[in-house]
Parts: sequence; structure tokens; C-alpha cells
Amino acid sequence: MAIKVAVVMGSDSDLSVMKETVDTLKNFGIEVYVSVTSAHRTPNKVKTFLEEVLKRHCEVIIAAAGGAAHLAGVIAAHTTLPVIAVPMTSVMNGIDSLYSTVQMPQGIPVGTMAIGKAGAVNAGIFAAQILALKYPKLQKEMVKFKKELADKVVKKDKKLQEKGINKYLGEMKK
Amino acid sequence: MAIKVAVVMGSDSDLSVMKETVDTLKNFGIEVYVSVTSAHRTPNKVKTFLEEVLKRHCEVIIAAAGGAAHLAGVIAAHTTLPVIAVPMTSVMNGIDSLYSTVQMPQGIPVGTMAIGKAGAVNAGIFAAQILALKYPKLQKEMVKFKKELADKVVKKDKKLQEKGINKYLGEMKK
Amino acid sequence: MAIKVAVVMGSDSDLSVMKETVDTLKNFGIEVYVSVTSAHRTPNKVKTFLEEVLKRHCEVIIAAAGGAAHLAGVIAAHTTLPVIAVPMTSVMNGIDSLYSTVQMPQGIPVGTMAIGKAGAVNAGIFAAQILALKYPKLQKEMVKFKKELADKVVKKDKKLQEKGINKYLGEMKK
Amino acid sequence: MAIKVAVVMGSDSDLSVMKETVDTLKNFGIEVYVSVTSAHRTPNKVKTFLEEVLKRHCEVIIAAAGGAAHLAGVIAAHTTLPVIAVPMTSVMNGIDSLYSTVQMPQGIPVGTMAIGKAGAVNAGIFAAQILALKYPKLQKEMVKFKKELADKVVKKDKKLQEKGINKYLGEMKK
Amino acid sequence: MAIKVAVVMGSDSDLSVMKETVDTLKNFGIEVYVSVTSAHRTPNKVKTFLEEVLKRHCEVIIAAAGGAAHLAGVIAAHTTLPVIAVPMTSVMNGIDSLYSTVQMPQGIPVGTMAIGKAGAVNAGIFAAQILALKYPKLQKEMVKFKKELADKVVKKDKKLQEKGINKYLGEMKK
Amino acid sequence: MAIKVAVVMGSDSDLSVMKETVDTLKNFGIEVYVSVTSAHRTPNKVKTFLEEVLKRHCEVIIAAAGGAAHLAGVIAAHTTLPVIAVPMTSVMNGIDSLYSTVQMPQGIPVGTMAIGKAGAVNAGIFAAQILALKYPKLQKEMVKFKKELADKVVKKDKKLQEKGINKYLGEMKK
Amino acid sequence: MAIKVAVVMGSDSDLSVMKETVDTLKNFGIEVYVSVTSAHRTPNKVKTFLEEVLKRHCEVIIAAAGGAAHLAGVIAAHTTLPVIAVPMTSVMNGIDSLYSTVQMPQGIPVGTMAIGKAGAVNAGIFAAQILALKYPKLQKEMVKFKKELADKVVKKDKKLQEKGINKYLGEMKK
Amino acid sequence: MAIKVAVVMGSDSDLSVMKETVDTLKNFGIEVYVSVTSAHRTPNKVKTFLEEVLKRHCEVIIAAAGGAAHLAGVIAAHTTLPVIAVPMTSVMNGIDSLYSTVQMPQGIPVGTMAIGKAGAVNAGIFAAQILALKYPKLQKEMVKFKKELADKVVKKDKKLQEKGINKYLGEMKK
Repeated sequence: MAIKVAVVMGSDSDLSVMKETVDTLKNFGIEVYVSVTSAHRTPNKVKTFLEEVLKRHCEVIIAAAGGAAHLAGVIAAHTTLPVIAVPMTSVMNGIDSLYSTVQMPQGIPVGTMAIGKAGAVNAGIFAAQILALKYPKLQKEMVKFKKELADKVVKKDKKLQEKGINKYLGEMKK
Repeated sequence: MAIKVAVVMGSDSDLSVMKETVDTLKNFGIEVYVSVTSAHRTPNKVKTFLEEVLKRHCEVIIAAAGGAAHLAGVIAAHTTLPVIAVPMTSVMNGIDSLYSTVQMPQGIPVGTMAIGKAGAVNAGIFAAQILALKYPKLQKEMVKFKKELADKVVKKDKKLQEKGINKYLGEMKK
Repeated sequence: MAIKVAVVMGSDSDLSVMKETVDTLKNFGIEVYVSVTSAHRTPNKVKTFLEEVLKRHCEVIIAAAGGAAHLAGVIAAHTTLPVIAVPMTSVMNGIDSLYSTVQMPQGIPVGTMAIGKAGAVNAGIFAAQILALKYPKLQKEMVKFKKELADKVVKKDKKLQEKGINKYLGEMKK
Repeated sequence: MAIKVAVVMGSDSDLSVMKETVDTLKNFGIEVYVSVTSAHRTPNKVKTFLEEVLKRHCEVIIAAAGGAAHLAGVIAAHTTLPVIAVPMTSVMNGIDSLYSTVQMPQGIPVGTMAIGKAGAVNAGIFAAQILALKYPKLQKEMVKFKKELADKVVKKDKKLQEKGINKYLGEMKK
Repeated sequence: MAIKVAVVMGSDSDLSVMKETVDTLKNFGIEVYVSVTSAHRTPNKVKTFLEEVLKRHCEVIIAAAGGAAHLAGVIAAHTTLPVIAVPMTSVMNGIDSLYSTVQMPQGIPVGTMAIGKAGAVNAGIFAAQILALKYPKLQKEMVKFKKELADKVVKKDKKLQEKGINKYLGEMKK
Repeated sequence: MAIKVAVVMGSDSDLSVMKETVDTLKNFGIEVYVSVTSAHRTPNKVKTFLEEVLKRHCEVIIAAAGGAAHLAGVIAAHTTLPVIAVPMTSVMNGIDSLYSTVQMPQGIPVGTMAIGKAGAVNAGIFAAQILALKYPKLQKEMVKFKKELADKVVKKDKKLQEKGINKYLGEMKK
Repeated sequence: MAIKVAVVMGSDSDLSVMKETVDTLKNFGIEVYVSVTSAHRTPNKVKTFLEEVLKRHCEVIIAAAGGAAHLAGVIAAHTTLPVIAVPMTSVMNGIDSLYSTVQMPQGIPVGTMAIGKAGAVNAGIFAAQILALKYPKLQKEMVKFKKELADKVVKKDKKLQEKGINKYLGEMKK
Repeated sequence: MAIKVAVVMGSDSDLSVMKETVDTLKNFGIEVYVSVTSAHRTPNKVKTFLEEVLKRHCEVIIAAAGGAAHLAGVIAAHTTLPVIAVPMTSVMNGIDSLYSTVQMPQGIPVGTMAIGKAGAVNAGIFAAQILALKYPKLQKEMVKFKKELADKVVKKDKKLQEKGINKYLGEMKK
């Protein structure tokens, strides 16, 4: 049976950033249920979304929102599944989104990632790390992923040692 | 029939500050329905609270919360009544509470007041200003209130002119 | 008789953003009196503006300003009508405008909205919510508006479920 | 076999706050391995700590640090286990701790909680939520916990309705 | 004829800090007209205050306010006299007061000082510097003041060289 | 004899913004001595600059700098003339420049203006207000300036009333 | 010949914090020349201080200041010796001090440490690290210091493993 | 034998900014070992990098990173060489990078420079200042550098005095 994660966002304007999460999860072989559901504009749809999450057997929920970003908190209020949050950039450089997401009161945790694209990718990885505790095949993928991550940096450093900074920069610009 | 306002807060630790709102409303002759209801800990009670609000014919809702302060926004999502919010002080001096409250997305407004006690008093006054549009007797109270507010400052200034700064300060300390 | 709201801004450079407020109000069938009046450059015109507001029977005032944004506060000082404020973006991403607007002292409330365009739209909705307490036909409009707001999100989510994220994003870019 | 979580902090001055995490985990019947290990003062001990974590079969790591809070990130760099972080308060009200913790680069996620005590409690709950995906008995505990959380608020609200705000506040002060 | 400066504050709670301004001005032999006048609570008294300022021949105005600190800006809007402002500390450590004061729009300058007590003293010195351009006797006082300021530091340094840090600190604590 | 003001900046990259100050001063008929002098790169030139200021009988100094903006403070340390400061925009939106400029210690005031262009214009006006205390002809210019400032806003409002918001905005875009 | 470092601060109110720097340096066997010299109150003494620094053959300068903290920058402007800075806490939690210190313009570096006491200790260590490049005996001290730093943490962790968290905390409180 | 400095960054996206450091060091005749090594993605390579640093006899390390910028701190944890840090710009204008870098705990100093390009240049100069204590030829270069720095500003000021602001600005734009 497939391993599944739900990705939800407050507005379809977040979709291009959250595609990073979806792609990251799919790269780990995780199936993704993506939904646009607003805590503020469709408050009654939050429960429908959560029923769908349970029906589809999603085990982790990733929520993205910006500004007064309540979506992750509202979802966490209704579920015992782990909720991971990605604060979107905003007129305030995402600082409002970050504070609205991370400063949850005692009792209702939300695992908050970095603002914007880096956070979107990391939400996918974090969900995979959580699920890897239960699914051994994911654990193998995770070890491989981490190795590749390191290898890419090592390779860049090797190239830098060989070519020197000027040539390296010259080739980056191309 | 009595004019009514609902005051709701996420935790009873906000009660001593929000008593300022309640007292302000009562001074205007407004009846107050006070409730402790958490958007995060009792998400299903938000609707019960709102039913109670309608049943009691409250016409304005004042919500107070701190940190990732979602209460006002969550309530505004479910009602067409005007929602006024008071951001509570926090480990971040209330800046997280303010951003979580005021930066609401397009479509769901929350009328945000100052952080802490000043905001708590002003929430009561603002509710009274809103209701004064409909209830002429409140309008009279409001004019009187504003006059008294000015008179107190004028009286202080007069005393300062008479006594001078040193005597004035001396009497303040007593 | 028409329902009326006044919209005032400190500079005509705020006009393109505040048009969102005007359009939102007109969509609710509310008549709008728009004025450029500066608390700092035309301090004596503030009273003229307020006399005009009373003469035209406007019942709510929406004020927009940026930087050391004093306009809403100065107007609130002179009236008992509810004053809604929209902090404009600025060299500091609107944080100065927000603090100058929301941190009003005890006694003089200003109902503050989000920074920029989202706040401009919400100011119009919030004014309509206030007036809907008095005018039943506005209440109907408000319920309809809230339903349409939800429907738009629901429709987007439906389309996302049908087309999948890649096709959806592809069509957004067109 | 016991379910296990590791809790690590940079300094024993964080111990009184992080006891909240330990107590929360123990309340869920989770065994806790607590360690003082500094990313900066004992960089070589980080690996020893992680070996101990694996030897003891801990499945989630909770890391607490303040200021330039690198501990959670450094640990996340070396493991594929999920790492949850609690930013400690600081001379800057914990804002430096929060930014140092949450703004992790693409590839290495850290699930960040609120600053200080609320975050410490929530880290324990979040770890339990993660482990509840794998251990059904924890899932039951989690549902019970969430119910009790709601019940406490409901009970407070009931008491408030019965006694009124003045009596309620009077009894709180005792 | 006496040289005169007006010192105005929004609330008598600012009086103990603003006494520093008054004392500084008096030390330079400048006469001070102190008034409590609120831009928000007594908007109509602002003009009365300004008429008094002119009648008494005050040549510089020093205004102190906190939070959404509009007083200096509102006064500057009505006068061509130089207006110096002191942002008061607040729930936000005075950052709201500072932004509300310093970020004045093009056309209406306010010479802003540091937050709190340091700013209160400096407002008095700055007013004296401005008036020293016109009144030669003030210029002499200013040179003397600046010399004494330096002498105090030089004396402390000398004592530190003689006694060493431990003895110096020991005597400070007494 | 001409009335004179000195305008100094840390780098010629500030020149295009500070031209606003120069133009504002010249519009008041004030002669301007402009200099590029860095507190950090040419610390010994600060005194040369100040000798030149005295030799040319400049009576007010306007200093502009960005980032760790020390120029105004360093100049204020060496002179008893009033020093007005303009914080330049920066990688931090000018917040570093503002704090470095305004938070001067007790004893050495610097009259701080808004960040960037608005502050640059206002520095010129503030200098003129200071000098108008001594030079009656400047006082007349100042009254005229303030009237024109108001007239411009009044004219815009009149046009807005006549044309309506849509036509007004249409003409603005041309 | 003795190895020497100069420690300078803007006010003797910084002395109790900067004693940490002095003690740290003395622990490494470094001689310390301590001086109170203000960039703003005694600008002409900065050069005297620097002559003394050269005369005494100090090789590194550590400067502490708060608010608009210009001291380190002003000293760095006049010397080619490495300047280390400690931002002092302030009404703004030291954020103003930090920005004023670290955001130095291109050409004039200042090596900035953490705000307050941690920064004061680290300034001493950093100076020792710099001087250890030249003086082998310091290098040995540095290695020893770093070992002791780690040992202290290791010892605490060992005690924690032996006693458990409750006993450990109980003994801390005594 | 050549004087050597190591420059390390977390990602090759920092390379174009850190080229400023490399060029600055080379201008002083210092040899540079540049490496891309991530504290988070290649934690095990940090030690390899440090072995290389020792093998090549680099005496100072300059580290650049952004966001939750741990690289400098992690390196400082493992070495007794002086570590200089450059916080990179980020979604938060580099404020997260700055706090993550500068707020190091007691015991492990990192000499922090300004955010971005100015900091990158200054890191090179600061390293040269440190090494100039040991290598007299560098000391001469440093004096020359500082003179040229001043000369450039003096020359610009001279040109400004000759041409006037309008011509000067006109030539800048070309």
C-alpha cells in the first residue's frame, strides 16, 4: 500500500512554491494529496479536507500559508496527525507568516519550516523522515538522499579546487 | 431590549486584561457575554460559542489571543458580525500576537486594536462606536465619554500650570 | 436613502491601492465619498473633511496613510464614528505604518487592517459588516459575499483535484 | 519494548525549561534519554550523543538551544531521524534563537516549535504525534490527551458562565 | 527678555521622564512652558497650546509621546517653529513610538531624539543648540556644557587608571 | 550676508538622494556647502570639514549616512552647532541606519529625520525652520512654503471631487 | 615582554560587563589597558587613547558601546590594529547597539561579538586567538582553554546521566 | 613563505559575493584557499576542510553563510584559529544570517562582519589586519591601503567642490 502525505495551502497563489514539496515527496515515492483549502475563506471545508485525509490514509499533513497564517494551526487543532508548516513570503518578508505559524500555544504543536522555497522542500524531507520511522524502504531512500546531498557539495568543491574561483564563476554565469 | 457584545479569549490567563473590555462595555450600558474558547484547544467549541452569540443577540464580537493568535481570525471566518481583536503581550512583547491578528488575508477582516491593556479598553470603545450607529442612546454616551476623556487631560494640564512640575510630580508619587 | 462611507487618504499616491476599498464598498451598494486630506500637510482640512462626512451622512470612515501614519488617529480624535485604518506599504515594508496606526492610546480606537492591498479590500468589507448591523439589505449582501468567497476556493480545489498540480499550474501561467 | 525519544540541550541552564519536554514525554509513557551536549563547546560529543541515540533506539530527537542556536541544525546534519527544535529565550526575547533554528537551508529540515516553555511542552507532544503513527497505543493516548486539553478549557468556560468574571478572577488570585 | 521653550506631552505619565528635558533647559537658563496636551484625547487643545506657545514667545517646541506617537507630528503640522520629539518607551520597547515619530512624510519635519531618558535630556540640549545660534550667551553655555561633559569622562578615566578596575567597580557599588 | 547650511555625506553614492536637501535649502534662498567626508574612511577630514563649516559661517549641519551610520554622531561630538541627520536606505531597509543615527547617548543630540528621500527633503525644511528663528525673511518663506504644501493637497482633493476616482487615476498614469 | 590588549568603553556603566573581558584576557596571561573614552563626549580623547595604545604596545583593541554605538567604528577608522566590538544591551535589547556596530561600511572592519556578557567574554577569547598566531605560548593556553570548556560540559552530562534530571535540577537550585 | 587565509562558504551561490573577500586578500598579497563546504549538507567534510587548512598553513578562516547560518560557528567550535564570518543576504534581508552568526555563546567567538558585499570586503581587510600583527610587510600594505581609502574620498570631495553637485551627479550617471 502506498505511503501518503497531504499538502494543503490557503490559496492557489502558493501552488508554485508548494510544488517543491509535492515533487520532493514524489521523489521519495510518497503519494501526495494536494488541496487548496482556506482556514479563513472556507472554514467549513477544513473538516472535509481532514475527512479526505483520513479516508485516503495520509499520515502527515503539510500546510502552507502567508500573512496571518492560521491554516496549519487550525488543522493541528482538529487532528492528532503531525502537522508540518511552511510560512509563505509576504509584504513583511514572511516574518508575519513565520510568527503566526511557529508561536503556537502549549498543547497544539506545528513543526515549522523555513520561510518560502527552502521550507517547502524541507517540509517534504521532514515528512519523509517521520514516515521512515515506520516504513523501512523510506529509511533507505533517506540515507541515499542525504548521501547525494553531500556528494553534490563535494563535487562542487572538487570542481572549485580544479578550476579556481574565476573559471568556476565564469561557468556558473553561462 | 439590551444591547449586547460578546468577549471571547483563548485562555483564562487573558481574563484580567480583558476585564478592561468588559468594564468599558458595561460603562456604556452594554451587556457582555464573556467566554473562554480556544481556537486551538477547543476548535469545535468555536461554533457553539457563535451559536450562543446569535442566540443572545450579541452584535459585535471582541476576541483576544496571544502568540500565534488565531482566535479572532477563526471566528471572523465563521461569522458576518464585525470582529474586533486585541493582541495579548507575549514573550516577543506581543509582536507575534499583533502580526498573527492584523495581517488577515483579503476577504476576512479583523479590526485590530493596540497590544495589551490599551487595546482591551479600546476594543470596548470601538464596539460601542459601531453600535452607536444603530442605537441613538449609545451615541449620546459616546459624546459624553469623549468629553470626559478630554476634560481629564485639560484638568491635569490646569493643575500642572498651577502647581508646576515639581509639586505635580511630588503629588503623583503619593 | 443611500448608505454611505467616507474614504480618506494622506496622499494621492495611495489612490490606486485605496480604489480597492472604493470598489469593494460599491460592490456592496454603498456610496463612497473619497477625499485626499493630509493630517500633516492640511491639518485644518481634517475638520472640513469631517464636516463634509457629517453633511453627507457617511457613517463609517476609512483612512489610509503610510510611514508615520497619523491620519486615522487624528480623525478618530475628532469623531465618534468608527474609524477603520489601512497602513500603506513603505520603505520599511509598512511596519512603520502599521505601528503608527495600531498602537493607539487608551480612549481613541482605530480598527486596523492588514498592510497594503489586502487591508484596503478588507476595510471595505469591515465597513459593510458594521453597517449590516443597521441595514438588513447589507446583511444579505454580506452572507452572499461570504458564500461566493468560499465558492471560489472550493471551485479552485475541485479544478486542482481534476487536473492535478502540473496542469493547474500550467494554466495559471497562461 | 519501550518507545524512546532523545532530548538534548546546549547548556544545563536550559534544563529547567526542557524538563517540561521530558515530563510531557513521560506522561505519554515514552522513555527519555536526556543529554547536555553543546554544538559549540563539545562538537566532537555530538557524534557520541548520536551513537548513544541509536544504541538506545531513540526514534526522535528534540534539541534546545538559544542565541546563535546551532544545536538542532548540527544534529540534523548528522542523522536521518526527525529533529524537533525548541528555541530558548535570550537577550533578544528568543528572536535570534528562533531565526537560527527555523531558517535551515534546503535539504536539512528541523521542525521548529515556539520560543521557550510553550515550545518545550509542544516538542514533547509533537514527538508523540510522530511516534503515534507507528505505535497504536500512543495514538490512543494522543486522542485522550487532546480530549483532556479541550475539557479543561470547557470546564473553565462553564465556571466563568456560572460565577461571572469578577468572582472567577477573585478565585484565580487566591 | 527670557529665552523660552515649550515642552508638551500626551499624558502626565510621561512627566517624570520629561522632567529631564525641563531640568536640562533650566540649567541653560532657558524658561520652560510645560503642558499636558493629547493629540488624540484633546485634539482641539492643540491649537490652544500653540496659541499659548506664541503668546509666551516660546521659540522651540519639544513633544513627547509613546505608542502610536502622533503628538509631535500633529504639532509640526500646525506650526513653523522647529519641533523636537522624544519617543517614549512602550510595550514594544519604544520601537512603535520611534517609527511613529521619525517617519514623517515629506514636508513636515520632526527632529527625533533617542527613545526615553537619553532622548529627553538630548531634546533639551538640542533646543539650546538651536537657540544658541540666535542668543550668544547660550552659545557660551553650550561650549561650557560640552567641556564639562568631556571633563566628567576624562576624570572617570583618570580615576580608573589610578585605582584599577576592581577598586573602581567596588566604589561604584557603594 | 547669505544664510548658510552645510550638507555632508559619507559617500558620493548618497549624493543623488541628498540633492533633495540641497535643492530644498536653495529654494528657501539658503546657500549650501556640500561635502563628501567619511567618518570611517577620512576620520581626520571631519575636523577639516568642521573648520570649513565655521570659516564659511554655516549655522546648521545636515549629515547623511547609511548602515552603521556614525557620521552625524561623530560631527555632533565635535561641534555645538545643531546637527540634523538623514538615515540612508540599506540592505536592512535603512533600519540599521536609523538606529545608528537616532539612539545617540545622553549629551550629544542629533535631530533625526525619516529614512531616505522624505528625510532628505525634511532635513532641508527643518534647517530652514531653525534658521527662521534668527532670520525674519526665512520665516516669511516658511509660512509661504507651508501654505503651498497645503494648497497642493487641497487642489488634488478638489480635482478628485470633480473628476471622480477613475478619471483621476487614469490621468495619473499618463 | 608582556602581550597586551586595550579594552575601551564609552561609559563607566559598561565597566561591570567589560570586567568579563578583562578577566578573560588576564586568565590567558595577557596584560590589559582599560580606558573609559567616549566617541561622542570625548572625541578628542580617542586619539590620546590610541597614542597610549601604541605607546603601551597593545596589539588588539576591544571596544564596547551601546545604543548608537560608534566607539568601535570610530577607533577602527584611526588605526590598522584589529578592533573587536561588544554591543551593550540597551532599551532595545541591544539591537540598536548591534546594528550600529556590525554594519560597518566597506573599508573599515570591526569584528563584532554577541550582545552583552557572552560577547564580553568572547571578545577576550577572540583577542587571544588572534595573538596566539604570533605568540606560541598563547596557542598552548588556547588549546587548554578549549579542552576545559569541553570538559565542563562533558562533566555536566555525566552527572546528568548519573543523577537524572530531577536530582540534577534539585542540586542546581541550591 | 606565503601568508595564507582560508575562505569557506556553505553554497556556491555565495561565491560571487565571496569573490570580493578573495580579491581583497590577494590585493594584500595573501594566498587564499577557497572551499565550498556545508555545515549542514557535508558535516563530515568540515573536519577534512580544517585538516586542509592546517596542512596549507592558513592562519585565519573566513566563513560565509545565510539563513540559519551555522558554518562559522561550527568551524569555530573545532579550531583555535580566529574565525571571521560574513552573513549573506536572505529572504529576511540577512537579519536571520546576522543573528545566527553573531549571537555565539560564551566560549566560542566568531568575529562578525556586515551583511553581504561590504562584509565580504571587510572580512578580507580584517584578516589582513590580524596577520599584519605577525607579518611586518602586511602592516605596510595596510597603512598604504588605509591611505588610499582616504585619498579616494578626498579626491571625490575635491571634485565635488570644483564641479558642484549638478555636474558631479551628471558625470556619475554616465
